[in-house]
Amino acid sequence: MRIAHVAPLYESVPPKLYGGTERIVSYLTEALVALGHEVTLFASGDSRTSARLVPGRECALRLDPRPKKSEIAAHLAMLAEVRERAHEFDLIHFHLSHFLHFSFFADMAGRTVTTPHGRLDYVDLAPTYRRFPRFPMVSISRSQRAGLAEANWLATIHHGLPIDIYRPAFETTEEEPYLAFLGRLSRDKRPDRAIEIARRSGLKLKLAAKIGDDDRAYFHDVVEPLIDGDRVDYVGEIAEDEKAEFLGKAAGLLFP
Amino acid sequence: MRIAHVAPLYESVPPKLYGGTERIVSYLTEALVALGHEVTLFASGDSRTSARLVPGRECALRLDPRPKKSEIAAHLAMLAEVRERAHEFDLIHFHLSHFLHFSFFADMAGRTVTTPHGRLDYVDLAPTYRRFPRFPMVSISRSQRAGLAEANWLATIHHGLPIDIYRPAFETTEEEPYLAFLGRLSRDKRPDRAIEIARRSGLKLKLAAKIGDDDRAYFHDVVEPLIDGDRVDYVGEIAEDEKAEFLGKAAGLLFP
Repeated sequence: MRIAHVAPLYESVPPKLYGGTERIVSYLTEALVALGHEVTLFASGDSRTSARLVPGRECALRLDPRPKKSEIAAHLAMLAEVRERAHEFDLIHFHLSHFLHFSFFADMAGRTVTTPHGRLDYVDLAPTYRRFPRFPMVSISRSQRAGLAEANWLATIHHGLPIDIYRPAFETTEEEPYLAFLGRLSRDKRPDRAIEIARRSGLKLKLAAKIGDDDRAYFHDVVEPLIDGDRVDYVGEIAEDEKAEFLGKAAGLLFP
Repeated sequence: MRIAHVAPLYESVPPKLYGGTERIVSYLTEALVALGHEVTLFASGDSRTSARLVPGRECALRLDPRPKKSEIAAHLAMLAEVRERAHEFDLIHFHLSHFLHFSFFADMAGRTVTTPHGRLDYVDLAPTYRRFPRFPMVSISRSQRAGLAEANWLATIHHGLPIDIYRPAFETTEEEPYLAFLGRLSRDKRPDRAIEIARRSGLKLKLAAKIGDDDRAYFHDVVEPLIDGDRVDYVGEIAEDEKAEFLGKAAGLLFP
């Protein structure tokens, strides 16, 4: 099949550091290429893929050091390009959460599928979904659907990952066992709960996480006062090739 | 003429507190109604206007206390409604900065006009503008055009305001004269410069301004340490009916 994948432009595919959605898009794209499909990836120009890459923007938004960027305009330009080439594909798979593509593809919704990788309980999503044709949707969990229960759900496909990239280290070389928190220090991800769980368990906690611009106030107010550099240690945002070791050596992963 | 004005959904029209764009849309809408035009305003449902109001969302985004809102989805729902009613209008005037409406109105760009009320030197705007038909644009200053020089500019129309709403108080009842800073404590608005100017002039400075979620880290890092509650005083975000007094009594307005 001729398949297009349309990734968000926030991070490259795969991401250099943080970036859950872009990582999953990468796994999926590579697997489809390996299965013999003709895959085109719309993503930031600094992405790496064995599919055909159509750059939606020179480089990914978040790590682009230029101060004045427009997330909305960047995605609109990419979507205009996807629209122009739509006839080249049997299926167009959108990995965008906030329906920015709906107005471009309203006349061919049936040839698309949308996997929103984020939460769907935002008050504006359900009324907006109803404004457009019933775009076919794939959920990443059953519970994710609750916020958009009446959508045209085709399937739930949990995030998969290559089976050999992470392996636990059953014998640790660490002086002291630690719990791991990996991801983003945002209100949604509940690092405050992870810290409380670690405190009560008596184990040390290492937080390896991004602090987004949107999260900085929350970090300042809630998380930073709880970090002591010893029992609760913030080790920064880590790269892809550091994750296997960080997770492998941990006594446990907290994802509260 | 049958004119539609499409306002952003961040603040009501007019805004309750901060909100430059929504304030100007209100002035313009009321003036067009007074001139006898048939005006429809697409804006948040808590707006007040003598035009016909079509609510794009129950209430404006920023002061909506619910935590999970989608700015993008909210605007998409409103734009879908404008598109559905497009045949009712001779002219549709968009007051949106990041081209979210372009994909909806590509087939009738000539019947629209767009006034972006923000800066246009974001790296993503010019390449995105070129992806769509040459939408007719109105600038709010000559210098604003620089970032999008090749756009289809029709005119520059400076922000106007009703002539009788602000008047200076030539005799002040204040103990000590003060300089005024009004607006938003963001990097773009340069409150740091205002503070430096006040310091060098020896005059007291009062900052009446919004601190947006995006601005909180900047406020924390740069502005807050300079506020002493005396020579440099943050008086919070003030309401429409407090502005005339705040500005009228000031020795001068700093807008650096």
